[in-house]
Amino acid sequence: MALTLNRKYIEGFVGQVELDALADFVSAAHKKIHNKTGAGAEFLGWLDWPSGMDASELARLEETALKLRETADVLVVIGIGGSYLGTKAVQDLLQPAFNLGGVEVVFAGQNISGRYLDDLLMYLEGKEVALNVISKSGTTTEPAIAFRILRNWMMEKYGEEATERIVVSTDEAAGALRKTADEAGYTSFVIPDDIGGRYSVLTPVGLLPLAVAGIDVRALLKGAEEAEKALSASSLEDNAAYLYAAYRQILNMRGYSVEVFASFEPAMAGINEWWKQLFGESEGKQGKGVFPASVIYSTDLHSMGQYLQDGRRMLFETMVSFVEDQAKMEIPFDDENGDGLNYLVDKSLHEVNQQAMEATAMAHVEGGVPILALEVPKIDEYHTGYLLYFFMKACAMSAYLSGVNPFDQPGVEQYKQNMFELLGKPGYEKK
Amino acid sequence: MALTLNRKYIEGFVGQVELDALADFVSAAHKKIHNKTGAGAEFLGWLDWPSGMDASELARLEETALKLRETADVLVVIGIGGSYLGTKAVQDLLQPAFNLGGVEVVFAGQNISGRYLDDLLMYLEGKEVALNVISKSGTTTEPAIAFRILRNWMMEKYGEEATERIVVSTDEAAGALRKTADEAGYTSFVIPDDIGGRYSVLTPVGLLPLAVAGIDVRALLKGAEEAEKALSASSLEDNAAYLYAAYRQILNMRGYSVEVFASFEPAMAGINEWWKQLFGESEGKQGKGVFPASVIYSTDLHSMGQYLQDGRRMLFETMVSFVEDQAKMEIPFDDENGDGLNYLVDKSLHEVNQQAMEATAMAHVEGGVPILALEVPKIDEYHTGYLLYFFMKACAMSAYLSGVNPFDQPGVEQYKQNMFELLGKPGYEKK
Repeated sequence: MALTLNRKYIEGFVGQVELDALADFVSAAHKKIHNKTGAGAEFLGWLDWPSGMDASELARLEETALKLRETADVLVVIGIGGSYLGTKAVQDLLQPAFNLGGVEVVFAGQNISGRYLDDLLMYLEGKEVALNVISKSGTTTEPAIAFRILRNWMMEKYGEEATERIVVSTDEAAGALRKTADEAGYTSFVIPDDIGGRYSVLTPVGLLPLAVAGIDVRALLKGAEEAEKALSASSLEDNAAYLYAAYRQILNMRGYSVEVFASFEPAMAGINEWWKQLFGESEGKQGKGVFPASVIYSTDLHSMGQYLQDGRRMLFETMVSFVEDQAKMEIPFDDENGDGLNYLVDKSLHEVNQQAMEATAMAHVEGGVPILALEVPKIDEYHTGYLLYFFMKACAMSAYLSGVNPFDQPGVEQYKQNMFELLGKPGYEKK
Repeated sequence: MALTLNRKYIEGFVGQVELDALADFVSAAHKKIHNKTGAGAEFLGWLDWPSGMDASELARLEETALKLRETADVLVVIGIGGSYLGTKAVQDLLQPAFNLGGVEVVFAGQNISGRYLDDLLMYLEGKEVALNVISKSGTTTEPAIAFRILRNWMMEKYGEEATERIVVSTDEAAGALRKTADEAGYTSFVIPDDIGGRYSVLTPVGLLPLAVAGIDVRALLKGAEEAEKALSASSLEDNAAYLYAAYRQILNMRGYSVEVFASFEPAMAGINEWWKQLFGESEGKQGKGVFPASVIYSTDLHSMGQYLQDGRRMLFETMVSFVEDQAKMEIPFDDENGDGLNYLVDKSLHEVNQQAMEATAMAHVEGGVPILALEVPKIDEYHTGYLLYFFMKACAMSAYLSGVNPFDQPGVEQYKQNMFELLGKPGYEKK
């Protein structure tokens, strides 16, 4: 099993009878997903993407990545939302916590901070640089601004050669960025029409920069394909993604309105952010939705631990853990034992960390916090692909169960309208 | 004014009559703080710390920092919770987003991940290293483990010279780390008895590593001292920190149970985490407390924006903004204007970012999210010091208003008890 939902911390809160009561709804929602009959069905391209991705496109993507790896010290990925968070998530989880060499992947166009971009340009000085600009339309404000500035910078630095160092991921036929790519002769990849931003990590959106970073994207896809197969079961009891979705909705209905996504592995920081977009943007509509929050333990036991244990009781936790010890870092013996740690000398940090998790889960359950424990065998490309697909499938189920379209985001237009008015964008002049 | 609470987005939600009703309670809580008559009064050392810090200790701290700057490429700060988050917060806000040279400050002992520590040791290979270990007791599991491992590493690399490269911040007289420091002859600084971890950023806990990073700690203290003076007013209307606290509690009582701490400046990421500890650990007790969450916009408008606009209505937002443009990064003209951005060509990124904030605030208010807008003139040491003190003072007031001790954290013991039992720590054997 590539991922298990361990029920030991939830059984005391949610009984089988509550799950059974949802079984028919789960079956009905399963049909919406697999027969493409639910709201937003035109965005279900992610469902069989892992098994169906075009082999020649994947080969071309790997070739392109290899070429960029040979010519660049730094790849700047220009993108925001789903064009940024998936890559960051996988990169954080699979790459070392510190830069130990190899091509570095950094981000731009994920904010409008002049200071950030200024710092980035200084950092790039003297380095060999490549760009991957990712935008369906090419007109999203943040990445469009960053691309204007960085494209000029690349032209000044490389002249004609810049063309070979800029790769575009955008719509197949329409939009400003497609036009730019075709006219300038940039290598380009397609963001599929039927896959929304937050479901796009396994498309070229995520795969290209991840391949440049040196990540085995075939193994990532292989894990996702395994999940696609394993999580196509229609019944709650045979499908861990559906089980997770059902527990979430039961807890939601019972007033647990904040989900704290937790892990004892700092490398999960990027997955935390990706997960928040996936669930927050899919479910937070029509006044509904569990509020998605995240922590990294044990770091945040020393900050949010007090609240989790004893604050307002409206929280449940989803804890992701990794079973295998992949570092084998041990605690050395000390003659003086002033810190009193000699009792840990025969243990690895991983064992201590796992026990800290167990201890925390027990304490939080006692404090009234239901916990959904997701256990993953190890941290590698394969299991990461599985994990990503697991959450995508669970999110679609969960959103349908709560009666919303998992694939739209009508609420993000309001601030954009205001912003274009304030900035005097043609066509949006103040009324 | 070094910080202003702009009421324009809150007035439609909370009227003057509601504030007036709290005025007497604010005065009473003010007395608890300033006359030291409230619960936890033995931890009010932070209150007049900025104006009262020992000048010779500050000079010695700066000298020590200078010496470390001359001998180290990397300073590893070993600490967790308040011994980690304050330094990270100030460093994130004041230093460039990318490593542009100078002494790099990295962290250890803020988690139990073997993988993280393994990566760190590889990263340190071939670099000149110094350690600053920060722990009141010296027996907190995470930093104690990291110090054992890193101390051995330093001894192997430097032999006797390691002594000159290790600086300890700990209790004045008691505890395992004090004993180690005295016996080994490490330079050491005192963590004051009357200042808890989450209030300790302006003590040597934060000041030493920040000075090593090249931050002007005198300006930081100067800003905090200005705040100490300005925020000593007893009345709600004259004290922005109390006004912030009062609004929070009014919103809390009305069912706004999640506070989203937001900024349009990515450099605020560390302050976000520090703020969550400050408020979460101070207020999240006895089943009470606003749940503290955080976002960085516009990044997270493309992930959490949908939820903020249209999800479950239990949120209020605190938005911190910086008025002055400190980067002056402009958007270049483009002949083709395929991205349609030429309407922004006479604007700086900062102006666009500020308008995005205004637009977001208007949209969220319309969506039913009350907003407390904190405006800071600029990003520098002085204003950072002011901001930190502002939140510490506001937090003490807010916690007293909600009827809890702002300075204890009884809930963090439960998981530790469990953990020591599971790990078989002497004295904690399983019952």
